[in-house]
Amino acid sequence: MSQTLSHFVMPIRVYLEDTDAQGVVYNASYFRFMERARTDCLRARGIDHVQLREEHGVNLVLARIEARFIAPAKLSDMLHVSADVIEIKGARMSFRQLVRRDREHGELLCDATADVACMDIAAHRPKRFPSTLTSEW
Amino acid sequence: MSQTLSHFVMPIRVYLEDTDAQGVVYNASYFRFMERARTDCLRARGIDHVQLREEHGVNLVLARIEARFIAPAKLSDMLHVSADVIEIKGARMSFRQLVRRDREHGELLCDATADVACMDIAAHRPKRFPSTLTSEW
Amino acid sequence: MSQTLSHFVMPIRVYLEDTDAQGVVYNASYFRFMERARTDCLRARGIDHVQLREEHGVNLVLARIEARFIAPAKLSDMLHVSADVIEIKGARMSFRQLVRRDREHGELLCDATADVACMDIAAHRPKRFPSTLTSEW
Amino acid sequence: MSQTLSHFVMPIRVYLEDTDAQGVVYNASYFRFMERARTDCLRARGIDHVQLREEHGVNLVLARIEARFIAPAKLSDMLHVSADVIEIKGARMSFRQLVRRDREHGELLCDATADVACMDIAAHRPKRFPSTLTSEW
Repeated sequence: MSQTLSHFVMPIRVYLEDTDAQGVVYNASYFRFMERARTDCLRARGIDHVQLREEHGVNLVLARIEARFIAPAKLSDMLHVSADVIEIKGARMSFRQLVRRDREHGELLCDATADVACMDIAAHRPKRFPSTLTSEW
Repeated sequence: MSQTLSHFVMPIRVYLEDTDAQGVVYNASYFRFMERARTDCLRARGIDHVQLREEHGVNLVLARIEARFIAPAKLSDMLHVSADVIEIKGARMSFRQLVRRDREHGELLCDATADVACMDIAAHRPKRFPSTLTSEW
Repeated sequence: MSQTLSHFVMPIRVYLEDTDAQGVVYNASYFRFMERARTDCLRARGIDHVQLREEHGVNLVLARIEARFIAPAKLSDMLHVSADVIEIKGARMSFRQLVRRDREHGELLCDATADVACMDIAAHRPKRFPSTLTSEW
Repeated sequence: MSQTLSHFVMPIRVYLEDTDAQGVVYNASYFRFMERARTDCLRARGIDHVQLREEHGVNLVLARIEARFIAPAKLSDMLHVSADVIEIKGARMSFRQLVRRDREHGELLCDATADVACMDIAAHRPKRFPSTLTSEW
């Protein structure tokens, strides 16, 4: 598949708020976890949502996501959620994201790909990623 | 206690998203439910968050809430969540809110009081409620 | 594509809880909305999560979802969220789900397909949908 | 006020999921943050929700909470959320919880007290906290 331009993984603890009455992590919680990982992946490179908005006039918004749920995460689990940048093209940044249990190479729970779009806030349309942010990737 | 200036109740269905691994509705979900009821209580009087912001330059924000949880709501329950305005004073609107099961006078699950503040967005400080909005209460 | 076995659409109001600081509906909220529509689609046919668990010993869990986000939903919007069953095969029920603004055929905001798996709770593995539930589809 | 039996504070980053269209942290998010802090406060003493359920047959549930919101938290803020046990009496554990910005003694955003009840799962009623868990406090 695509080459990885950037690798990032973060630990995320599962709390009651993330679970549901079926006794496992609720499906929408994975999307919150993956967004946290994408955000901190960018933050690790000095890119922050607030700065993007105030200095560049852009928002990053999810344009497409596909997720396969392989095994359930549970209350009190320590998850490892990755956000690997696999392509940056025009206004689109594509991520591969895995959710694993206990450790970086632990049991695979969720396998996803996500496309994030850089949107010009004033013009309401896609805009190339600011080159200063992505030139070194 | 205070006289009720306005009575409002809305039905809210419990979905998986609202529950947790203990098999009941997660505590923070009640605060989402109560905010929905406050919002629709105001909407029923022609007051909407978007209009407040754009026409009056104010946001309504929760300033204080106290909630007692008496019995648990469960998956698939149909709740009835009230939002009664009990006082409007300066920049503060006070609500009494009850969450009941199945019907308007059903089993009491949660009993709360909430104070909402009217905040001037530009000035970052409290502002009297626009009189056109509350004069007839 | 596949023929539609069942059509369902529900109105969903956007509250503050569903939005984020970018001023639009947060991406994970769409997954909550779509799950509500799938749940009520089944409820309209007499199938409820609690009954599935207690009478049939199964949970319905999301196995895969793909969503494209086309335009943003906003605070106070009234959305129309569909859940059309397009295939039932073994332990899998596949849905097409659209989120539109204002009315059933309004502006398209999100286009998704979701596969739900019927899981035997005790055995922790997929199980054919109970035939009494799906025979007439 | 009451003496503090146990002090705990945890850092919590604010992500998009926690904010709303008014540009600040949504009110129900504070209740999620405070529950995380209570959970990790107990975990730091070797008490976990899963273990409580499986070994002691009890759930911890929120019985009452009062929160005052003093200043808004914002996207990307690093919060410090405390959970101090101020009293354990019968089936009730009382917490004082503060949310501050940037550091443990930073700007105060939210000041709350919360009572958690120890509930016997089978009997559906309050039960004294297991003495092995709280004897050394």
